[in-house]
Amino acid sequence: MNVNADTAFQPTAQQIRQQWSDHTAAVMLASPANPTGAVLDQGQLTEIIAVVGELGGNLVMDEIYIGLTRNGQLQSAAGRGEHVLVVNSFSKYHGLTGLRTGWLVAPQKTMPVAEKLAQNLFLSASTLGQAGALSALSDEAIAIFEQRRREIARRMDYLMEALPGLGFVLPVKPRGAFYVYADCSGLTRDSFSFCDEVLEQAGVVITPGRDFGDNQPERHVRFSCTSDIQQLKAGVQRLQAYLSSCP
Amino acid sequence: MNVNADTAFQPTAQQIRQQWSDHTAAVMLASPANPTGAVLDQGQLTEIIAVVGELGGNLVMDEIYIGLTRNGQLQSAAGRGEHVLVVNSFSKYHGLTGLRTGWLVAPQKTMPVAEKLAQNLFLSASTLGQAGALSALSDEAIAIFEQRRREIARRMDYLMEALPGLGFVLPVKPRGAFYVYADCSGLTRDSFSFCDEVLEQAGVVITPGRDFGDNQPERHVRFSCTSDIQQLKAGVQRLQAYLSSCP
Repeated sequence: MNVNADTAFQPTAQQIRQQWSDHTAAVMLASPANPTGAVLDQGQLTEIIAVVGELGGNLVMDEIYIGLTRNGQLQSAAGRGEHVLVVNSFSKYHGLTGLRTGWLVAPQKTMPVAEKLAQNLFLSASTLGQAGALSALSDEAIAIFEQRRREIARRMDYLMEALPGLGFVLPVKPRGAFYVYADCSGLTRDSFSFCDEVLEQAGVVITPGRDFGDNQPERHVRFSCTSDIQQLKAGVQRLQAYLSSCP
Repeated sequence: MNVNADTAFQPTAQQIRQQWSDHTAAVMLASPANPTGAVLDQGQLTEIIAVVGELGGNLVMDEIYIGLTRNGQLQSAAGRGEHVLVVNSFSKYHGLTGLRTGWLVAPQKTMPVAEKLAQNLFLSASTLGQAGALSALSDEAIAIFEQRRREIARRMDYLMEALPGLGFVLPVKPRGAFYVYADCSGLTRDSFSFCDEVLEQAGVVITPGRDFGDNQPERHVRFSCTSDIQQLKAGVQRLQAYLSSCP
């Protein structure tokens, strides 16, 4: 389902209802989303849960970025209905990417199927990963993650301020995750070759829209804020130098 | 496909050919096998690889117990053909069960599919698991695993000698893994309730055939040799006491 800037890069309950067919079993959403950083607000989420339930489907929420918001906590969809499943991980907010440890919050009735999948796909999460995850729940660790969250928000604020000066358009301000999704159609007709040139000529990595789907991928690029702010500033300067050298 | 004692609990190339249908895409075998400890010898394996190739299928070999043999090393099926895939893990021979780290040896042509599966199912093995696995490949670690292998062989020899005296029949001597699969039909008509009673009355855990399939599960039980020999001896004594108290 293609979502655009005019719905802040998230689907509405009405769009889901329109796209539903006899073959639809579930809808899977991410909030905050990668690559847009778009968030479903509580009203939208409540409507979507109601519509999906009414249509007899399941809602699978990818909440891997839920702890990473620019401001204000987000409420999980977990426990919001017998048709709502929530996927999360220690990879993003807790920064334990390489541990491959996450969790699923699912209604009781789905347990037999979930157990069958787990038994056949991975048996259990890595023991060391579980130990790491347990430590990541301590108050000391959470304090570090909160500090990191605020730092990421600061980086996003910086990029959101700097990018329009370079010719990028930000139709929707990202509210979570650590990405800024930008419209680059004022600079190029092909985001893919643009990213390639920026990498080769300016030494800056941007991800083209094509990596995320087929909704106008040629006019979008994704900036990531996982590097520190000095590096982001250096990247912006290089981009500026490169863009001003273009004919 | 049911395999019995008369083929040493492994299928023959001829059996595979007979069972093949238009809908068969692959055959999956384990050698050494759980629960039987049965091994495919080189001649058998070579024939099976040839027949599966001729039939246009793939052979997926589960070699998770390949390092654990009572005597003599086994040769992997890896690299034996463009239709042969081998699955292995650090869980058994290397004893790193909880790390959920393993590997697949697959022909080049299967890589696009394998990558797709990996990307969607687990992305990558846990970083910590990979570090542990790397250490498990050192000479010092291998020396420990070889000592353990010989110790497990000793335990299996002990059980194979002790069990017939209790009334179990071992139609095929296990050649690998750490299991002894025994015919218990001289002691019970129902291995499941038998295991339950043995657990309750004698405090000994045996696994009923039902946990492994539907090939005469009521007349088989699996003994595991992961406990040390003193504990195995205590188990045998308790079993003896229990069985001699039965009417």
